[in-house]
Amino acid sequence: MSRTPAYAAASATAPLAPFVLDRRAPGPRDVQIEILYCGVCHSDIHQVRDEWGGSIFPMVPGHEIVGRVSAVGGEVTRYAPGDVVGVGCFVDSCRTCPQCRAGLEQYCDEGMTGTYNARERGTGIPTQGGYSTRIVVDQDYVLRIPDGLPLDRAAPLLCAGITTWSPLRHFDTRPGDQVAVVGLGGLGHMAVKLAAAMGAQVTVLSTTEAKRDDALALGAHAFAATRDGSAFKALRGRFDLILDTVSAPHDYNAYLGLLKVDGTMVLLGLPDPAPVSAFPLVSRRRKLAGSMIGGIAETQEMLDFCAAHGIASDIELIDIAQVNDAYERMLRNDVRYRFVIDCATLRGAGPDVGA
Amino acid sequence: MSRTPAYAAASATAPLAPFVLDRRAPGPRDVQIEILYCGVCHSDIHQVRDEWGGSIFPMVPGHEIVGRVSAVGGEVTRYAPGDVVGVGCFVDSCRTCPQCRAGLEQYCDEGMTGTYNARERGTGIPTQGGYSTRIVVDQDYVLRIPDGLPLDRAAPLLCAGITTWSPLRHFDTRPGDQVAVVGLGGLGHMAVKLAAAMGAQVTVLSTTEAKRDDALALGAHAFAATRDGSAFKALRGRFDLILDTVSAPHDYNAYLGLLKVDGTMVLLGLPDPAPVSAFPLVSRRRKLAGSMIGGIAETQEMLDFCAAHGIASDIELIDIAQVNDAYERMLRNDVRYRFVIDCATLRGAGPDVGA
Repeated sequence: MSRTPAYAAASATAPLAPFVLDRRAPGPRDVQIEILYCGVCHSDIHQVRDEWGGSIFPMVPGHEIVGRVSAVGGEVTRYAPGDVVGVGCFVDSCRTCPQCRAGLEQYCDEGMTGTYNARERGTGIPTQGGYSTRIVVDQDYVLRIPDGLPLDRAAPLLCAGITTWSPLRHFDTRPGDQVAVVGLGGLGHMAVKLAAAMGAQVTVLSTTEAKRDDALALGAHAFAATRDGSAFKALRGRFDLILDTVSAPHDYNAYLGLLKVDGTMVLLGLPDPAPVSAFPLVSRRRKLAGSMIGGIAETQEMLDFCAAHGIASDIELIDIAQVNDAYERMLRNDVRYRFVIDCATLRGAGPDVGA
Repeated sequence: MSRTPAYAAASATAPLAPFVLDRRAPGPRDVQIEILYCGVCHSDIHQVRDEWGGSIFPMVPGHEIVGRVSAVGGEVTRYAPGDVVGVGCFVDSCRTCPQCRAGLEQYCDEGMTGTYNARERGTGIPTQGGYSTRIVVDQDYVLRIPDGLPLDRAAPLLCAGITTWSPLRHFDTRPGDQVAVVGLGGLGHMAVKLAAAMGAQVTVLSTTEAKRDDALALGAHAFAATRDGSAFKALRGRFDLILDTVSAPHDYNAYLGLLKVDGTMVLLGLPDPAPVSAFPLVSRRRKLAGSMIGGIAETQEMLDFCAAHGIASDIELIDIAQVNDAYERMLRNDVRYRFVIDCATLRGAGPDVGA
């Protein structure tokens, strides 16, 4: 066991505050990681505030983790001390169901084991995330951060990156495809970078003109403000794929009308239920789909792609003491485009004793 | 021109009544067909009563047409007098858009030209359907009815058959796949027959137990009544594909929960908009899709498959004079499973003069 400085929420109504958690000593297949950076994901807020129900407290959030290996178990073959590695949204799964065997651990029949706000398989001990200085993870759920990626800007790739990469790949984005990204936040800005690097023609759809310049600077080829509705006529039938990153309720039918025949709109957020009309689906064989993060193998593929293409997240690096303010700013959409915690700022907050 | 006995609706509130329409003389690429049988589709009722808006009156409905070629134009190479042929839901399209070039004429960018309740490309003359004794159609939009199919029972294949065949094929149904059919009516009963003949394991989902015996007799391997909700737990995550033939509003989310990871639910009807939750889509990468009839090439493929597998619609053959009563019975779901008009009964209703 190692006593590890962290920030935790004591309850759904408590702010994040200094906390010391016990990390297990590395087992035979475990990798012990000293955390350098951890991204702040909107789902951290949902879970800390128990907005999805079933939250486990005290909770140390964080699932966009980059760090350096400090120890490995005796059976670990894939990593060695000193390696720079990442941990994303889950740290275990059943390993035997059809999805786990297919590298789609995020859809495990028994449920993936979340990096935090879940319980370890077997022991039932709550998992605790990356707003801390150390984590211990089975080697099969650890990613390698390729050389050349800036480590702070790589952290959000572990969730925002893979969440947008996976549907781009699964729905077979090819050079020249017309791809729309709805919403330009943490997910949306990664979707633009990745889709453009794949050779797609990328259009950002955002409520107002405010993010036009950013969208184009991130690599989008076009931008349309949607508030007055004219874009829904002008862009009718344009897109092969729409990545919808918006979590607020919005009119799916209007966006479905922007798809070509056989086009797909993929929901990446979890808005409240909204009415869907059969007509735009039936009349052009369109599809409304969903997608959730990605498997370990495709996360590694995404990281390697990002290194090869010089892609990383646009971030604002913060001290851990700023995290509650950061949550408030995120709720006002006041971040371009991801907060990342410098976990060195946690090391003064309590003991950091090795195993 | 040939004056052709028919039944037409004079307005959205008028019953169908005897009518004489003028069919064009066959042009160089036209096939003139003496109609033997015409199926009665639920969409006939919607259009006759102008429930989708924009209906053109007087209207002769009918787009499940089987007949015998009586004359062909000088450039017609594919059909000859005496051939038994079919005409489905459309009789023309632009022929140049990506969908037309791909054999997906039903999704033509300029809109397919419906067999009735549409306007001919070029002339703008209203098209008139199969509740008549004769029709003249460009050879590229005529199907060949293979030997061995009973002609009356083949008529519904031109709409109900292809509407269910196309999504089974497009979404790649394979032997052993788990396929659910929601609703056992004109579409549903064809979906069961076709999916079972493809080797799928077919489950019929119907509100009550009333159609259990029919479902199993049609070839379904299992049946579940959905009214009490227990089926939605018992069958959770079961299906690769759900063909949803129901036009009344229903809870899409409950059915989406029955899909496996990467499963697809395909809407074939046009229910009023209903709320869709992102959760069942996102959590298992499921898809909600739509599909509309099928292209000419795949309609021919379906007819050939039906002949090879001894598949045809279960029908109740009626005289044209019974058609208004048939509509009322369809609205009460009192038909197993398709009404087909014996168009010989129209030949006493007015002149049938050759071109």
